[in-house]
Amino acid sequence: MVFTKIVLIVEYDGTGYHGFQLQANMPTIQGELEKALWRLTQERIRVTAASRTDTGVHAKGQAVRFRTKSSLPLQTFIKGLNYYLPQDIAVKTAYRVGESFNVRRSALSREYNYYILNSLIRSPIRRGFSYLVAGHLDIGVMSEACQALIGEHDFTSFASCIGVKIKNTLRTVYRAEFQKNGELVIFNMVANSFLPHQVRNTIGTLIRVGLGKMTVDEFCSIIETKKPGLAGPTVPARGLCLIRIDYPYPFEEEMQ
Amino acid sequence: MVFTKIVLIVEYDGTGYHGFQLQANMPTIQGELEKALWRLTQERIRVTAASRTDTGVHAKGQAVRFRTKSSLPLQTFIKGLNYYLPQDIAVKTAYRVGESFNVRRSALSREYNYYILNSLIRSPIRRGFSYLVAGHLDIGVMSEACQALIGEHDFTSFASCIGVKIKNTLRTVYRAEFQKNGELVIFNMVANSFLPHQVRNTIGTLIRVGLGKMTVDEFCSIIETKKPGLAGPTVPARGLCLIRIDYPYPFEEEMQ
Repeated sequence: MVFTKIVLIVEYDGTGYHGFQLQANMPTIQGELEKALWRLTQERIRVTAASRTDTGVHAKGQAVRFRTKSSLPLQTFIKGLNYYLPQDIAVKTAYRVGESFNVRRSALSREYNYYILNSLIRSPIRRGFSYLVAGHLDIGVMSEACQALIGEHDFTSFASCIGVKIKNTLRTVYRAEFQKNGELVIFNMVANSFLPHQVRNTIGTLIRVGLGKMTVDEFCSIIETKKPGLAGPTVPARGLCLIRIDYPYPFEEEMQ
Repeated sequence: MVFTKIVLIVEYDGTGYHGFQLQANMPTIQGELEKALWRLTQERIRVTAASRTDTGVHAKGQAVRFRTKSSLPLQTFIKGLNYYLPQDIAVKTAYRVGESFNVRRSALSREYNYYILNSLIRSPIRRGFSYLVAGHLDIGVMSEACQALIGEHDFTSFASCIGVKIKNTLRTVYRAEFQKNGELVIFNMVANSFLPHQVRNTIGTLIRVGLGKMTVDEFCSIIETKKPGLAGPTVPARGLCLIRIDYPYPFEEEMQ
């Protein structure tokens, strides 16, 4: 029996889902993808994501891999899955990959955006995809604090312990920066990988810096403390979006 | 009894509403605003909008006026109404205006955006606020066609007749232009006022031009024909957003 390995690039509005990972009796992205794959191929297929997003987190470019016996063309996978998937999940593109490809371990980096609406008044149009911060945010000082995140660090201080002991808490942050577009403040963070809740605890702490409730020095010392509890609060999931996963080679090379 | 006249600038996600205007047993923006005003002031208040948006149409800056006996400060109106309003409607700001102010007739112009997602694949994140067009759109030729809209014209060809005879079908278009941001194509249109469905019929026709199904000359002759039926199709409401209403003086002058 010949299996082929396929990677899907998936966009979703995470509002209605209990995260990516399969859970009994709860709607999840994995559950919907596996249901759509079953309808299309009549195979019981397990999918694995590059970055397991939490309840309510969105994605523009999640990478999801699976194995199939089907020899359907990639375009048929894309169109067929989009036909069966609900409107809040879509397969943007698909690639065939080699057997050695590992959707998690082959990834060079993960990129996330966090959207803050810095306004006195909530925004009905942006409400599903941003977090409202009413106090004035000093983007300059937040950008300064960000610099301390760049490079390889033990990010224990920014991890939420969800009953799981994490062996290796070293992560390499390649980019951490703010961009302002009117009332919208976008925090962009790229790292080789992230600890649980790392982006949301980082932005929660940076907001305290931006509001003048914490100095840049205090922010830096939280990193150095390497103990959970000082960072945060964990900002809401609805502001977070997984933008893309980077791999060491363009998928196109293996595309058929 | 002294009444004061107040203008609210209102943002809403129109997805769940049967348009602005009050309808029996249907959720409407007007209905929600009047309910919130009743809760805040205990007065039965009627509100009037500058531009009556249709079912499913969104607004970033709708102008809504009402009269009240209340002498509550404007900030209390804003906060109080936002407390009582549902999450998909918000009052962004409020101004006191003079008795001669007419929210509809005093308006110099109305500005609308229409959001097209020009992509082969639907977008879960943008789905509530855009219209998917899969075929390649030639923005250059659409921009060329747009020029014919500028100025004062009889726009009968672009009006939907909804059983109502419109006396004056002359309208002055001040701006009609496209902007491209990746897969997102934004059509921006400013006019003194609009005929029913004018923006949605205009963009429906321009999409035919952009897809190569109609020439710029044919587009121009539709304007000149002054007969309904040739323009369109009427594109979906979810891509349309009322951006702002312009008045001949800054509200701030009359603000208290």
